Amino acid sequence: MYQTLARTSRRYLSKLPDKTSTLAKFNFPLATSTIKSVTENIHEFINHKQKVTLNGHIHRKARIRPTLSFGFLRDCNGEVVQFVANAATNDKVMDTMKKLTVEESVSITGFAQQKQLRKGETESWELALEDIQILNSSNIDAPRLEKLKQARPEDLPPQFRYLQLRTPFYQNALRVRSKIAQLIRKVLVDGHDFVEIETPLLFKSTPEGAREFLVPTRSPNQFYALPQSPQQYKQILMSSGFTKYFQIAKCFRDEDLRSDRQPEFTQVDLEMSFVNSSDQVMRVVEDVVLSIWGKIKQTSMYTLNESGELVETESDANATRLSKLDYLTALQKYGIDKPDLRSKISFESLEDFFVATENNDFPVVEACVLRGAFDPKLQPSKPPKSLTSELNYSRRRPYVFIIKSENDTKTWYEQLVKKGFMRNKGNLSEDNLCRRLSLNPGDILAVSSRSHLPYENPTPLGKFRQLAILEFPGKWQRPIRRGNDLVDSYNSDETVVGTWVVDFPLFNPVEVSEDTNAPYPKYDKSQLESTHHPFTMCKSEDYNLLETAPLKVKGEHYDLVVNGVEVGGGSRRIHDAALQQYIFEEVLHVKNYQQLFGHLLKALSMGCPPHAGLAMGFDRLCAMVVGTSSIKDVIAFPKNQSGSDRVVESPTTVDEKTLNEYFITTIDSCK
Amino acid sequence: MYQTLARTSRRYLSKLPDKTSTLAKFNFPLATSTIKSVTENIHEFINHKQKVTLNGHIHRKARIRPTLSFGFLRDCNGEVVQFVANAATNDKVMDTMKKLTVEESVSITGFAQQKQLRKGETESWELALEDIQILNSSNIDAPRLEKLKQARPEDLPPQFRYLQLRTPFYQNALRVRSKIAQLIRKVLVDGHDFVEIETPLLFKSTPEGAREFLVPTRSPNQFYALPQSPQQYKQILMSSGFTKYFQIAKCFRDEDLRSDRQPEFTQVDLEMSFVNSSDQVMRVVEDVVLSIWGKIKQTSMYTLNESGELVETESDANATRLSKLDYLTALQKYGIDKPDLRSKISFESLEDFFVATENNDFPVVEACVLRGAFDPKLQPSKPPKSLTSELNYSRRRPYVFIIKSENDTKTWYEQLVKKGFMRNKGNLSEDNLCRRLSLNPGDILAVSSRSHLPYENPTPLGKFRQLAILEFPGKWQRPIRRGNDLVDSYNSDETVVGTWVVDFPLFNPVEVSEDTNAPYPKYDKSQLESTHHPFTMCKSEDYNLLETAPLKVKGEHYDLVVNGVEVGGGSRRIHDAALQQYIFEEVLHVKNYQQLFGHLLKALSMGCPPHAGLAMGFDRLCAMVVGTSSIKDVIAFPKNQSGSDRVVESPTTVDEKTLNEYFITTIDSCK
Repeated sequence: MYQTLARTSRRYLSKLPDKTSTLAKFNFPLATSTIKSVTENIHEFINHKQKVTLNGHIHRKARIRPTLSFGFLRDCNGEVVQFVANAATNDKVMDTMKKLTVEESVSITGFAQQKQLRKGETESWELALEDIQILNSSNIDAPRLEKLKQARPEDLPPQFRYLQLRTPFYQNALRVRSKIAQLIRKVLVDGHDFVEIETPLLFKSTPEGAREFLVPTRSPNQFYALPQSPQQYKQILMSSGFTKYFQIAKCFRDEDLRSDRQPEFTQVDLEMSFVNSSDQVMRVVEDVVLSIWGKIKQTSMYTLNESGELVETESDANATRLSKLDYLTALQKYGIDKPDLRSKISFESLEDFFVATENNDFPVVEACVLRGAFDPKLQPSKPPKSLTSELNYSRRRPYVFIIKSENDTKTWYEQLVKKGFMRNKGNLSEDNLCRRLSLNPGDILAVSSRSHLPYENPTPLGKFRQLAILEFPGKWQRPIRRGNDLVDSYNSDETVVGTWVVDFPLFNPVEVSEDTNAPYPKYDKSQLESTHHPFTMCKSEDYNLLETAPLKVKGEHYDLVVNGVEVGGGSRRIHDAALQQYIFEEVLHVKNYQQLFGHLLKALSMGCPPHAGLAMGFDRLCAMVVGTSSIKDVIAFPKNQSGSDRVVESPTTVDEKTLNEYFITTIDSCK
Repeated sequence: MYQTLARTSRRYLSKLPDKTSTLAKFNFPLATSTIKSVTENIHEFINHKQKVTLNGHIHRKARIRPTLSFGFLRDCNGEVVQFVANAATNDKVMDTMKKLTVEESVSITGFAQQKQLRKGETESWELALEDIQILNSSNIDAPRLEKLKQARPEDLPPQFRYLQLRTPFYQNALRVRSKIAQLIRKVLVDGHDFVEIETPLLFKSTPEGAREFLVPTRSPNQFYALPQSPQQYKQILMSSGFTKYFQIAKCFRDEDLRSDRQPEFTQVDLEMSFVNSSDQVMRVVEDVVLSIWGKIKQTSMYTLNESGELVETESDANATRLSKLDYLTALQKYGIDKPDLRSKISFESLEDFFVATENNDFPVVEACVLRGAFDPKLQPSKPPKSLTSELNYSRRRPYVFIIKSENDTKTWYEQLVKKGFMRNKGNLSEDNLCRRLSLNPGDILAVSSRSHLPYENPTPLGKFRQLAILEFPGKWQRPIRRGNDLVDSYNSDETVVGTWVVDFPLFNPVEVSEDTNAPYPKYDKSQLESTHHPFTMCKSEDYNLLETAPLKVKGEHYDLVVNGVEVGGGSRRIHDAALQQYIFEEVLHVKNYQQLFGHLLKALSMGCPPHAGLAMGFDRLCAMVVGTSSIKDVIAFPKNQSGSDRVVESPTTVDEKTLNEYFITTIDSCK
């Protein structure tokens, strides 16, 4: 119930709006049809002189002429129809026609009739108007709105999100999002007997990960925190007897908003107990993801076969349908843990020949060759700018060479040795080096360095590969195997390639770089952090390394990567409280782990069964299916980069009295 | 990524847990069956000597005997099976049998065999054990856990919620909740083409309603607020071109927690545009609710026919399937706006005869007769205590009489006149009064007063009616019409009666009672508040009263009431910005409405179409279907009455450094 205080002084009085015209806005005929339903049966409508009522918005300015006047209605499917008023029509209709402004909502009634097509028009019918009623006008002055509407929808000012959302692109984007959610639930509930369980959003501060939003309570110095994910609650659910849990869950992270991050986001979260291998989770997730592309986009998904060719995914009772790529191979071949496998560009290690000398922690020299990138006859003097621009690299750039001549194929490295970037490893065999790279005039060669265990993600060469894919669309596409044929010319925008990336290192040294743009990052190997989260189980074969060499331990973690995007990540979890405690205490050195995670350790101790799960970024998944690069396009009311929702103008100030109820005060007022 | 700081001093070292026994917990056979699937095909399993693996929890203490030992496994469906180890079985199995403690998770493998039934047993088979493996032990000492498990599940300490949730009742409750959510989505999406759209949880403080949770940001004195409902965003969505929106949405209210309120709760929220009557929304909601009871409980829903009898709901193309009861009738007949219509108890106004004189604002005298409540021969001296106990009434109690004799039927009122509670209205006709009430010995009569426009909800007599329904189960049941028959003896617990309550007053005077337990509430008629929310449209016929007598205006609001519970409430909304502004300004006197609701007024001004919607309390709905009185039973991790989640021990303190990042500090540290 909304309660108010009497105003002590009134500056002005508004009048009760006119009764007749106001009530008329609530009293109107329901739509009998949509534009689409009339179009589909147009002959019947015309032959039977069937009366039609359409409701919608005025799409553009009406044309008022002495004999015939024309209006344009857009209905809820985004389709537009012309309606015609004859000067002979009754005065009321003509009066209304003259008043129409764009985007107001109206109800029109009349008869469908054949349309005289003008040049460029394809619409087949128009509505001969019998009656028209304005259901709500648009009070922004018409010329301004006309102008706004001429902007591309994505360029409309964000406070007019509702106008944006009325356009077909956004209508479709949010409808597809709804369909994907519905399909995910169908696959998990009907297909796999999962139970959807809501976990609390008023959670507890466990400040080990990203920064959390706090929620003050009306008890002094007592705060909830909004969850970064349902991870801990879902593990407690595994200890609660649910064997297959999922949730399409809201999550929160108070991080600095990069262009495509939102402070609140949605995650498809699932967990299964009594599983003895990651494959059981992976196969469920494959069912979900293949259904989404199959049913909503009518697209098959490809993955890699053993020869590194793309093949359509097939059901296999004994294996996952998507290939598995291990983390080290991904980093060594593609320089990133989420490679876009539609491209076959990959790297060669030059470790046998050189050692990089700029920074002892980054000794490995590696090379990437873009074969036949240019016509050697044209003799360009420089590689494409995007491949070398400082703006495209956050740290050091690779050295990029254009191989113009036979001589270049043999001498390119001399410059790098001279510069002191690297040195020969003693017995350099030029023949072997030539064989390794097989350079030819017309190639572009990039050379860079990385560490042995490649912490940089992407490496400089990994970033180079991404830029090359963008710079040379359609080139070096990984071939698709169709029976005996290999096809390498295809539309990569419409090709969906998925893979699992596995065998991640369980821990990383903490990065302690002072300058985030310095050529090389710095790590403190005495401080470890979990690559994903501290609840991930290690590979059995690495168990003893937990004690002796934790940085060498690989985790039972799996990422789902589609077209170079990490769509989801999951792991087998530690269900043994003693092992979990050891990792908090002896590996991660979490001081107050009992206070932060004691609840989880207790729940594990109570006979919690073995379990594994995964979480997918729902916003990103929807954006991929819709075919947009921004998750803002699939969120009804996204926040901008300052965290503000321009439609409602949040956040706002709050008065001191209210804050005091929460036993808090702003720091300014405290001083 | 979880990051930690190196501990400067270590007080003790934990050891890496033993490799073999720890890894064994991750390496075990998958279940081949469930107990249920074996039971259903038991002969086949026995005849073919099919090997079975079952995974689950140890349900109770094993019985270790010299020849045969018995264990008890409960699987994920909550079913229990006995497994038997012969002393001749291998030593490893016997050793494990001896170590078993309750609630640990195990994997057992063996062969189903016929069981020798002991007295009272109905299970038909047991598992002859070949192998058993403990997947995780329960580290709480066994005797304590044994004892805990003997408590009724609902009496387990809340920090052991995971043990509670393992019991069949809670497993079922959360599974049913998941099914209901799935069914709601099916009806709305597949049946009615609704689009599910997520609206932001980081919203803006609009402090007109209940107290909101605030969320500090890292900008000085800038706060988000968690939404009490998606009301404003969904209206903006109506202005965004979506014609049928819904969402199963998380909502938040920072109110004092009564026994059955939660600070976060779930709401089924829907809205439709271009509708010209409430019925269009009601019929969609009826589809949802009738499906839930029909498909999940296999129960039909009843409603009232014109004679006030219960009838099964039927499809009707021209009307809602549930009856409509207007607010004034509900208050006058049942003393509450959400009457339990399974009872036919109703009230008689005695306005013609008496006027109540204790408080001028509460002049109406009304009576409730419980006919044949007792056997007059037994001559009880007092009515049942529950009907008169002060504890059961928050304000004044009705006067309750037991009618023992013919004389009592005529003289009961003299006492009330003498007491000064009421006076005759001049020409009291005893005959007419007798006819009005038709009292007989054996009746219980309750008399109380109310105001003309009955603001109290429930009235004292309305509360009396609820108590009488509880005190006399099975009595005065409203008859069910089945063809020509009227049935009034039925199990009311299994009978579901729904109705719409309509024609609520649009505004109420603000209650200004100093003492919430004083006999009569106090109102300030110069301050109005919305009965539901300020976005509700008035009845057309009352339009002009907005200016002249707003308290007399009825709203286009509708509540869905099932078995005395308000399951949902909705309304046609004001889509005309000028009218909405008038109501903020001239009726509710909201001082800063532009700041609070300017975003909504702007969205309405942009040609927002007419719209109407409804919200249902999802937790309450689930509780009703599950058949429990507490919503905590259908929430995985509810908060207790102090707002604490005892499983994770939230909320917690937050250190000053973190608070400072949000430009806030606790008030204590500020002084």
